[in-house]
Amino acid sequence: MQPQTIDPAMLARAISALRAAIGEKNVFTAEDDKVAYSDHYAPDESVHRPSGGLAPATVDEVRAVVRIANEFRIPLWPISRGKNFGYGGPAPVLKGSLVLDLSRMKRIEIDEENGTVLVEPGVSFFDLYDFIQARKLPLWLSVPGNSWGSVVGNALDRGVGYTPYGDHAARICGLEVVLPEGDLVRTGMGAMGNSKSWQLYKPGFGPSWDTMFCQSNFGIVTKMGLWLMPEPESVLGFDIEFDKPEDIGWAVDVLAPLRRDGVIQQSPSFGNWMRSAAVMTRREQWAKPDQMLDEKAISAIRKHFNIGWWSVQIRTYGPLEINEATNRHVQKAFNGKKVLAMKPSRWVKGDKPLGSPVSGTPISFPLANANWFSGRGGHVSYSPVLPPRGDLALKQFQRTKALYDRYGMDYHASFSMGERSMTNVNQVLFDRDNPVMAANLDRIFRALVVDAKEQGYGEYRTHIDYMDVVAETFDFNQHALRRLNEKVKDALDPRGILAPGKSGIWPAGRRGARA
Amino acid sequence: MQPQTIDPAMLARAISALRAAIGEKNVFTAEDDKVAYSDHYAPDESVHRPSGGLAPATVDEVRAVVRIANEFRIPLWPISRGKNFGYGGPAPVLKGSLVLDLSRMKRIEIDEENGTVLVEPGVSFFDLYDFIQARKLPLWLSVPGNSWGSVVGNALDRGVGYTPYGDHAARICGLEVVLPEGDLVRTGMGAMGNSKSWQLYKPGFGPSWDTMFCQSNFGIVTKMGLWLMPEPESVLGFDIEFDKPEDIGWAVDVLAPLRRDGVIQQSPSFGNWMRSAAVMTRREQWAKPDQMLDEKAISAIRKHFNIGWWSVQIRTYGPLEINEATNRHVQKAFNGKKVLAMKPSRWVKGDKPLGSPVSGTPISFPLANANWFSGRGGHVSYSPVLPPRGDLALKQFQRTKALYDRYGMDYHASFSMGERSMTNVNQVLFDRDNPVMAANLDRIFRALVVDAKEQGYGEYRTHIDYMDVVAETFDFNQHALRRLNEKVKDALDPRGILAPGKSGIWPAGRRGARA
Repeated sequence: MQPQTIDPAMLARAISALRAAIGEKNVFTAEDDKVAYSDHYAPDESVHRPSGGLAPATVDEVRAVVRIANEFRIPLWPISRGKNFGYGGPAPVLKGSLVLDLSRMKRIEIDEENGTVLVEPGVSFFDLYDFIQARKLPLWLSVPGNSWGSVVGNALDRGVGYTPYGDHAARICGLEVVLPEGDLVRTGMGAMGNSKSWQLYKPGFGPSWDTMFCQSNFGIVTKMGLWLMPEPESVLGFDIEFDKPEDIGWAVDVLAPLRRDGVIQQSPSFGNWMRSAAVMTRREQWAKPDQMLDEKAISAIRKHFNIGWWSVQIRTYGPLEINEATNRHVQKAFNGKKVLAMKPSRWVKGDKPLGSPVSGTPISFPLANANWFSGRGGHVSYSPVLPPRGDLALKQFQRTKALYDRYGMDYHASFSMGERSMTNVNQVLFDRDNPVMAANLDRIFRALVVDAKEQGYGEYRTHIDYMDVVAETFDFNQHALRRLNEKVKDALDPRGILAPGKSGIWPAGRRGARA
Repeated sequence: MQPQTIDPAMLARAISALRAAIGEKNVFTAEDDKVAYSDHYAPDESVHRPSGGLAPATVDEVRAVVRIANEFRIPLWPISRGKNFGYGGPAPVLKGSLVLDLSRMKRIEIDEENGTVLVEPGVSFFDLYDFIQARKLPLWLSVPGNSWGSVVGNALDRGVGYTPYGDHAARICGLEVVLPEGDLVRTGMGAMGNSKSWQLYKPGFGPSWDTMFCQSNFGIVTKMGLWLMPEPESVLGFDIEFDKPEDIGWAVDVLAPLRRDGVIQQSPSFGNWMRSAAVMTRREQWAKPDQMLDEKAISAIRKHFNIGWWSVQIRTYGPLEINEATNRHVQKAFNGKKVLAMKPSRWVKGDKPLGSPVSGTPISFPLANANWFSGRGGHVSYSPVLPPRGDLALKQFQRTKALYDRYGMDYHASFSMGERSMTNVNQVLFDRDNPVMAANLDRIFRALVVDAKEQGYGEYRTHIDYMDVVAETFDFNQHALRRLNEKVKDALDPRGILAPGKSGIWPAGRRGARA
């Protein structure tokens, strides 16, 4: 049994050993460093403040760090680049953990012919984009809305993008992982030392581990294989604006079968007016701080920016002749439907680059929504997964909107259409300097979890503050999945050093810390 | 530590307890029963002869069986329907295991709107097909070449089919699993007791387990979610025959980019002349038993049946207008290429059913290749995964063909085009009553493993006789993946009762049995 808390004497000894192992300048324990590795979107950054950070540069150094953490029983919180904002940024679940910062590990190996990369955790979307552009390779990334983060970290946390390769975790092909006791494993075909297909064939032989290292604390991923989309000959589609909140119902029912049949292969995301507006304007221009945004204010904003109550971008990809037929098929599905606007979008190879997430170009302007309030902004997202049905989307919108109203938050949501599911991302923007709002943030989050659980909807990904709360809703057979996860956790990490509490999975000696 | 062998006294006590738990008539220990659960394609069936079989009908009974097996330390070998022929049929790796036969568990739940099923292991492809046809649902299965087996068993062993849903393991969405100590877990969104999206969203929250129960001995799958393809409006394509063995090179290079770009979404499989012929004729009509099939004999067979040295079926699916454009794109890729024949294939909704694996219709006539030799036939397959390149396919063909020649076997192979990989299934047909051939079977198999390992090619699936031999080739960092698998195995199955030796994974007390 390891201690429930972190022993300061042991921590000091660990830090000495770490300095010797990876160099003094790569171990950061000043107060400023602790602040740097905190959650800058949290109302109170101190809740998850780490004891410091350390930044090894090689796999061997990561293994050395892990051995030291085991020796001194110090919890490590691995981050790739630490840009997981809205979910905790670089900060650990367990206060006082050491942040294992992998951002110095930036190697990229590319297989141009097969369209795959092997990347280390420090490689950002911008890095990989630049790498590919410098070589003029006909390969496209899939990037998240904000692309400042790590390709590896985003995929491991099941981040999503806007091209047909937008389910990033599903495009992982083979990992290299340092296990919690320091062993080094390669998954899939990489488990063969001289493998020629590590990045080409996902399952390997026997049980497949790749998805076990997603959203988990079973190992530290030091290399990840990822498939890249071959540059398509064309990208066609529509930008559609909808006038009324209720339009989400029929619109979901139009897209769901197209998505299921594979006519549309990316995940179109219906965003409400505020998703569009919050990156372009500030709230104070439209309402007083304590005043709710009423329909009049919303109408004014929508009119000013010419946006619908909901909007969606639909894109199809492929050889032009095929894609034009696909595009006509999509258009036909909207025949006779009342939309506010349906603007065609057309890009053909040779045109100037689209420069958009729909073409895998990394961007970061959506970060501007942190400025919605006049104080220091932040946001947290609650994202349950629903069956892809219009009536359920409409009810979900109505129930969650009522919760936003009750807790005085501005409704900011999207419904993203997966192949057979629909993810309802509820983003709560808040002013970190407003204590009432901070308190309500916690209340609305918990209310959203309760509401979704009542409906039978589970969350796909969550903030470090709520990992236990969300894990608690996965309750089949008195939490059988938790028992299974924690049995494996204890076998792989007997001293409980790796990311205790991640996804609600706690090692044996620290289960008392579960919320 | 459990014993290396199975204690007859413990076995007898276990069988008594099992009879009490699931009913006398569901525990089979007569000699005939042991024969029934043996590998009927093996030269020597006794090598893997079980101690008997037992057939629970419910999840609760499976849990009771597992508890008894733990109490008496008796290894169980779970089978769904036991039709895994070519890989061992129903027989266990470890002689004397009890076969846990799940074929009585035949429940099917369907979600018609989303096109998903939840099936128990006893459901065969024919069962599920009949279920869907009886309800006239517009949903298509993907079926393997021989469809007599279980939908669950086939997907868990990573069997493949011929439609865009042909990667069966990749279409699994959510499992119910009895763990080796008897706990019952549901994976993915099913880990939420009242989940509405168990069959709709694969990853769930936290680490994902589904792929960990594929080709593994970590649990007994009692229910599996599976996605079904919505009936397409059309199926178009070509049946192509190639004249020369060398044609495999350029033909692979034509298909690989179409497959990678997603123009072709099923996995076309190049089969040699014998794959076509062996189901239609017998060897004795063309050569004497001890005589090799020379080019003259091969030409005679090919001429008689009008088949190429290689042949491939390519099919594309979708709304007719889109699909016609896709089909033109495929055809264009073969412009100027010298093929023996390129026969268009066209099916549009409303036409009479295709009745073929390309439309998900279960068949079993390929089993006829067991009659190739005049004695009792059998076959074993060796299937390494290669990068999808023509030059590598050609070299692979040349090297493996030389091994078939050396060991006096008739070359029977296919190259199946995955999205970024190519699986080379080498089937070795043999006469079980010919001892020279049986001995050579073992020699050629081991030679194929050595050859593939030298090239850096790992196998995707293997026969129970060779699980250790193949697992041995996955040797990165002195078999780090094996250490990881066996650490988890010991945590989940401390008494080592579940399928010891499956995929080369042995529990602590039985590692001495590793080949």
